[in-house]
Formats: sequence, structure tokens, C-alpha cells
Amino acid sequence: MTWHQHRLVLPPFRRGFHLITEQVVSALPELKQVRVGLLHVFIQHTSASISINENADPDVPRDMETSMNSIVPEEFPYVHTCEGPDDMPAHVKSALLGSSLLIPISEGRLCLGTWQGIYLCEHRNRGGSRSLVLTLQGEG
Amino acid sequence: MTWHQHRLVLPPFRRGFHLITEQVVSALPELKQVRVGLLHVFIQHTSASISINENADPDVPRDMETSMNSIVPEEFPYVHTCEGPDDMPAHVKSALLGSSLLIPISEGRLCLGTWQGIYLCEHRNRGGSRSLVLTLQGEG
Amino acid sequence: MTWHQHRLVLPPFRRGFHLITEQVVSALPELKQVRVGLLHVFIQHTSASISINENADPDVPRDMETSMNSIVPEEFPYVHTCEGPDDMPAHVKSALLGSSLLIPISEGRLCLGTWQGIYLCEHRNRGGSRSLVLTLQGEG
Repeated sequence: MTWHQHRLVLPPFRRGFHLITEQVVSALPELKQVRVGLLHVFIQHTSASISINENADPDVPRDMETSMNSIVPEEFPYVHTCEGPDDMPAHVKSALLGSSLLIPISEGRLCLGTWQGIYLCEHRNRGGSRSLVLTLQGEG
Repeated sequence: MTWHQHRLVLPPFRRGFHLITEQVVSALPELKQVRVGLLHVFIQHTSASISINENADPDVPRDMETSMNSIVPEEFPYVHTCEGPDDMPAHVKSALLGSSLLIPISEGRLCLGTWQGIYLCEHRNRGGSRSLVLTLQGEG
Repeated sequence: MTWHQHRLVLPPFRRGFHLITEQVVSALPELKQVRVGLLHVFIQHTSASISINENADPDVPRDMETSMNSIVPEEFPYVHTCEGPDDMPAHVKSALLGSSLLIPISEGRLCLGTWQGIYLCEHRNRGGSRSLVLTLQGEG
């Protein structure tokens, strides 16, 4: 049984949904030695989120953005408006999509389905850099 | 500390919410030997999801379906329409409800509340068979 | 590698979003001895949820409540109405926000971001006491 923990600092992304599967896997040199285990991906922010979605058609992340903007509109009588009109909807989206993922590992690889990818969901107009904590556990 | 991992292939379900607690538990013969631990249930698809909900009244899964159809309508200017009008809303629902569950284990049993059950949420009209990865860890 | 599991029974909260980070940490005397690990917080109910959100401005939990009431309205043709008009929307909110959290641990502390707090989200008008299962694992 081994534990590994890494901090992954992502550069600023524009508002929207961005595939980061490769960045996550590249930050985990120990992944190959895990026979069975779990990878936890955690984002340390409340206005961006981490989610799994379809990894092939670039229209999917675009539709995710317009769809989430429709479900959680900026035009709403929010009280918390001091950080701009995109801030409170970002907190709601972050709560709905979640701040972490747990992905099974088998024979040194993430057990993602063929069409599954890991997305950083940036809900702010200018969210800046985002910090992830990657925690890998398993047996070799 | 032990790790066990199983693949559970579910037969095609019709669109909607379906209780699968028994199927999941039946696939885990090692569960009884775990004194304290965690069970991870992961679905390898992006148009179906895994969720916990009320396990007693069959009206609840029906209302979950109509409610999610109202929150994520098919009538929306999606760009990703090549796989049919039910596909992109399925990706949104899957992101909102989540692709995995983590459930505590105590004395050989899942620590679910009295009214909690595990649901497969099929968001496609004809989703076909769905693959789950069950990862069990704990100490005996 | 050590495992610790505690039951945390929360007193009744009024409907809305309530910070419980301190209650959770106080229930975990073993946390300080974990060098790297994970904390799982699980709620054993289907009409309340557990979520991470902004921990500083009390307007945020207020806006979360009004926003979730707008996304999941009580005025909807639900069939499951036998437990009152706030019950079925509570099940939908609980499915959307989730029934558990997994938080990384580093050097004896939860790796929460500066602005992240753990919220109990009470979706019923009179939800009563709520039971959490806290499962801590890691290496010392």
C-alpha cells in the first residue's frame, strides 16, 4: 500500500470547460506502479470545479458552458455581488458539478471509459491560476 | 488492508432512474470481511450516472426523471446534436449527478441510511449496457 | 496505514446551508497524526446533502438556498407528495449536490483551500437531526 500526493498548479484558463486529463496523468509518475487503487483529484477553489465528461467532440465543452449558464443564470437576485456578477453563479455551479473526482486505477492506468475525460470547469471570467491536490493510493 | 476490484456490467435499462443496490452488493463477496473501509462505485460512461436517492417509493425515481428533464431540457440550442436530441442533455445530467459514489463500510456492511439506495441513472433513450468498476478497500 | 471511523450526529438545522467544518474537524482527534490521507464525509439521508462552498460571506449560503430553490422549484408536478411539498425537491437537491465529500489530508490537516468550508445543506423545512459517517484513512 502506497500513498502519493502532488500539488498541480494549472495556468489560468478562460471561462469554460477544459480537458486536463493529460496534465493530471503527467503529474503522476507513480501511477504506472499501481496495480489496483484510486486517484483523487481535488480543486482548492469554490468558483471552479472538476468534472468528467465526453472527451472527443469540442462542441461538448461549449454546450456544457451554455447549458450551465442557462441552469445557473447570472441574472438572479443574488445578495453576494461584491465580487462581480459571475462570482455567485460560479459558487452554485461549483457546488453542482463538485470539487473532486475519484477515479479507479487498474494495472497502472486510470480506469476511465473510452469517452471519459477530466475537465477543469472555470466558472469565473478571470479565474486565474487554479490549484489541484492529487492523492494517489493503491497497492503495487 | 485489502483491495478488491470488480467489473459489473449492467444490462440495458430504459431511460430513467433504477435501483441497483442489490446488484452492487451481490458483486462484492469480500464485503462481509471488511471491518472498516470504503466502496467506490464508478460508471465508465458520460451519458449515464450513479447517484444515491430514496429507495422506497417508486414515485421518487419517476419524479427524478421528470425533474431532471425540466432542469436540463432537450429543447435547447445545443451544438453537439450529431448523436440525437437526448445525447447532450445526457452529458449535462451526468455531470450534475456524477459518475461515482463512495460509500463507507462498517462491520461488513455498507453504511447506507435506512432510506438510501444506489441508482443507475440512464439518461439516453437507448443507452445499452453500462459498465461499472467497483473498488473495495478496507481492513479486516 | 490506519483507518478511523466516527459517527457524527448533528442537531437539527433550519432549512438552508450551514458551515460545519469545525464540527467535522473536532470529531477527528486522529487527524493530526495523518501525514497523507483522505477524509470521507458521508450523510445518511436523501433530503439533505454535504457540499463545499465559500466559507467567509454569510450571503453565500443565503444565495445558495434561493438559487437551489429556483433551480429545483417546489411548484412542479411531482407525484411523490405524501411527505409534503418540500420533500421531493429535497431529494432532487440532494442528488445534485451529493451525499458525500472526499477531502485530501496533508501533514495532519485537511487540504481545503483558503475559502473552502464544509456545508450541511438542509433541504427540508423540518429535517431533524442528521447522521454523518466520517471515515479517515492515511499513513502516519
